[in-house]
Amino acid sequence: MDSPLGILLRPVDGGVTAPRGFTAGAVAAGLKKAGRADVAILAAETAVPAAAVFTTNLVAAAPVVVSREHIAAGRCRAVAVNAGNANACTGAQGLADARAMASATARALGCAPEEVVVSSTGVIGVPLPVALVTAGIEAAAVALSADGGSSAAEAIMTTDTFAKEIAVALELGGHAYTVGGMAKGSGMIQPNMATMLAFVTTDAPLTPEACDAVLRAAVDRTFNRISVDSDTSTNDMCLLMASGAAGGEPIPASGPAFEAIAAAVHHVCGELARLVVRDGEGASKLIEVVVRGAESEADATRAAFAIANSPLFKTAVFGGDANWGRVAMAVGKSGARVDPDRLEIVFAGVTTCVNGTALVFDEEAARSALAQLDILVLVDLHLGDSTSTVWTCDLTYDYVRINGDYRS
Amino acid sequence: MDSPLGILLRPVDGGVTAPRGFTAGAVAAGLKKAGRADVAILAAETAVPAAAVFTTNLVAAAPVVVSREHIAAGRCRAVAVNAGNANACTGAQGLADARAMASATARALGCAPEEVVVSSTGVIGVPLPVALVTAGIEAAAVALSADGGSSAAEAIMTTDTFAKEIAVALELGGHAYTVGGMAKGSGMIQPNMATMLAFVTTDAPLTPEACDAVLRAAVDRTFNRISVDSDTSTNDMCLLMASGAAGGEPIPASGPAFEAIAAAVHHVCGELARLVVRDGEGASKLIEVVVRGAESEADATRAAFAIANSPLFKTAVFGGDANWGRVAMAVGKSGARVDPDRLEIVFAGVTTCVNGTALVFDEEAARSALAQLDILVLVDLHLGDSTSTVWTCDLTYDYVRINGDYRS
Repeated sequence: MDSPLGILLRPVDGGVTAPRGFTAGAVAAGLKKAGRADVAILAAETAVPAAAVFTTNLVAAAPVVVSREHIAAGRCRAVAVNAGNANACTGAQGLADARAMASATARALGCAPEEVVVSSTGVIGVPLPVALVTAGIEAAAVALSADGGSSAAEAIMTTDTFAKEIAVALELGGHAYTVGGMAKGSGMIQPNMATMLAFVTTDAPLTPEACDAVLRAAVDRTFNRISVDSDTSTNDMCLLMASGAAGGEPIPASGPAFEAIAAAVHHVCGELARLVVRDGEGASKLIEVVVRGAESEADATRAAFAIANSPLFKTAVFGGDANWGRVAMAVGKSGARVDPDRLEIVFAGVTTCVNGTALVFDEEAARSALAQLDILVLVDLHLGDSTSTVWTCDLTYDYVRINGDYRS
Repeated sequence: MDSPLGILLRPVDGGVTAPRGFTAGAVAAGLKKAGRADVAILAAETAVPAAAVFTTNLVAAAPVVVSREHIAAGRCRAVAVNAGNANACTGAQGLADARAMASATARALGCAPEEVVVSSTGVIGVPLPVALVTAGIEAAAVALSADGGSSAAEAIMTTDTFAKEIAVALELGGHAYTVGGMAKGSGMIQPNMATMLAFVTTDAPLTPEACDAVLRAAVDRTFNRISVDSDTSTNDMCLLMASGAAGGEPIPASGPAFEAIAAAVHHVCGELARLVVRDGEGASKLIEVVVRGAESEADATRAAFAIANSPLFKTAVFGGDANWGRVAMAVGKSGARVDPDRLEIVFAGVTTCVNGTALVFDEEAARSALAQLDILVLVDLHLGDSTSTVWTCDLTYDYVRINGDYRS
């Protein structure tokens, strides 16, 4: 496939361990039921350049607090992840438990605890069973392998129905570089600076500054443009590690090599973000909301999120109903500058509203378009030339069932 | 019952026609199915002091545009309402149709069209069947009666499952005053400056300025503090008319008489707002969210709405699960100033979190408390002395069914 820069990105297998210089391992430590894997380690051979972005939720989980400290130096040897418990709202004990996860990983790998990022996902407000987790970390360290990416992607799942991983390769200045990634999502998804656990690796020799710039640019238009249910998790984290194992000169935070790797990371993050939405809790459809003709990108994003987060819009898509009046309502309440007399709405390929006024349209054609799994809703504000795209999913009975039934 | 000022408010029958000087009439004009009433008129004997607040949605419906013009003079003779069609996103024809509703009402009552407020509720983006509506207005004008309040409250319903009306009487300076009201709600409910159609009447001799001040103060802490689904309608409107028929000196916009009437109007608006939430689409529970200890009332309201609009919180309440971690999450993402280490959460009477840390609590007691129809969630930020209360409902299978099944 072509990246926005015209660089050929070739899909490859292996997820986060597709790039050279990374290993991963996962074990069932007893946090999830039925013996499913729930603790994973992703490791480089040494502490490599790395960057991370974290939730903007002020009630940040203990692993977020600890990982923010550890990543500040711009290097990371490994990340240890557990699923089944978020270690959030757990007070001083939670912080100690997060530090214990880093220490256990450091002991197993022979590095400093400050070189370890830790990450947790699961229920909020329950003490972390730290002995189970550290025992799991020790076992996962023994299981580390260069083809362990897929097992790690499975271990970090919670209510996800499938593991989310991707990798792409590209040629650049005589070097073959690879970018891989894995993510978990499902519910409590409107990331704001990161999503609920995404880990991206590359064997390109990015500097720490280049890691940071690449990651922030990619996240801003991928993980920060998705919503399952408008809720922002306490544990969101997106980490990029660059092993440099593919060789070549260090890649600084600008220039053609930087742009090429940035395009590949953007692609990997975009694909993972869309997989998170497609597998949103109870989701039956992936919805792409494009708002164009806005006065600013911020206005376009505001209007697109107002649509993407409207329960009335999301239930209409679930019901296969081109109820575009709900799109008009959402745009009007969004806070974006809107001239109601210029509004144009194309709902699943069917133009339903021009100059803010209803058109007579073919309801059967609309129903048939809405029966697809992928739905595009396009709004043109006809006020300027800024555009934004946001991805979301529909709101279904299953969302209510999953979140009403159990302390998930 | 006692108002906040200690003034005795005595419940009385009759809704909007309980105050002297008002009549109402309703007919089935053919907009709803099955011969249900769908056009109503509420009228005073002459153009009386009045005020209104309208949706802040920039995509405002035609009747909102017309009524904003007509109420600007501070007087109103009558309001004509239809259900079954919102007359929104209907362009120039929609505006002409809204003006035709005012003209038909004016002809029937012998007043100027500018003395008539018009209001519509129902599906967005479908041309108003204006001939049916104006014929309905003519018939409703013939049916006007001093005990027509309840029939009008029924006629303005859409997906509401019961009519919403209330009236209270109070004694003041030797005069017996009455305040009555009716509202319709159900879905697309997070009013911002008004809710989806509420009409309040009083026979107290308020001046136009006093009407405006009383209404804005009441709406700000009642209709502007509720949410069913975070969506703001294109047609929201709340109107107050003061006939003065109970006699006495004109009541200006300050002083003890003003405060007494303001308390009664606040009470009527608060009861109607809670009825709207209790009858929210698919709702099985009324949830009161109180945030206290905030640095400002704006911060408290922001945090309370973040909780009230969280789909994860609302499904947890539906499922009878004291999942207070979702409350912590919502507070943290709200934008309000929060110190996670001071957060206290009392979920349906059960203290679940103190100093931002989980408490061990009696899950059975929580389940039993959550089986009630009325749920109180209290959050103390322990940062200041400001408080805000927001009312919402749970998110249920029926919400998805109602809004997924049909162009409602």
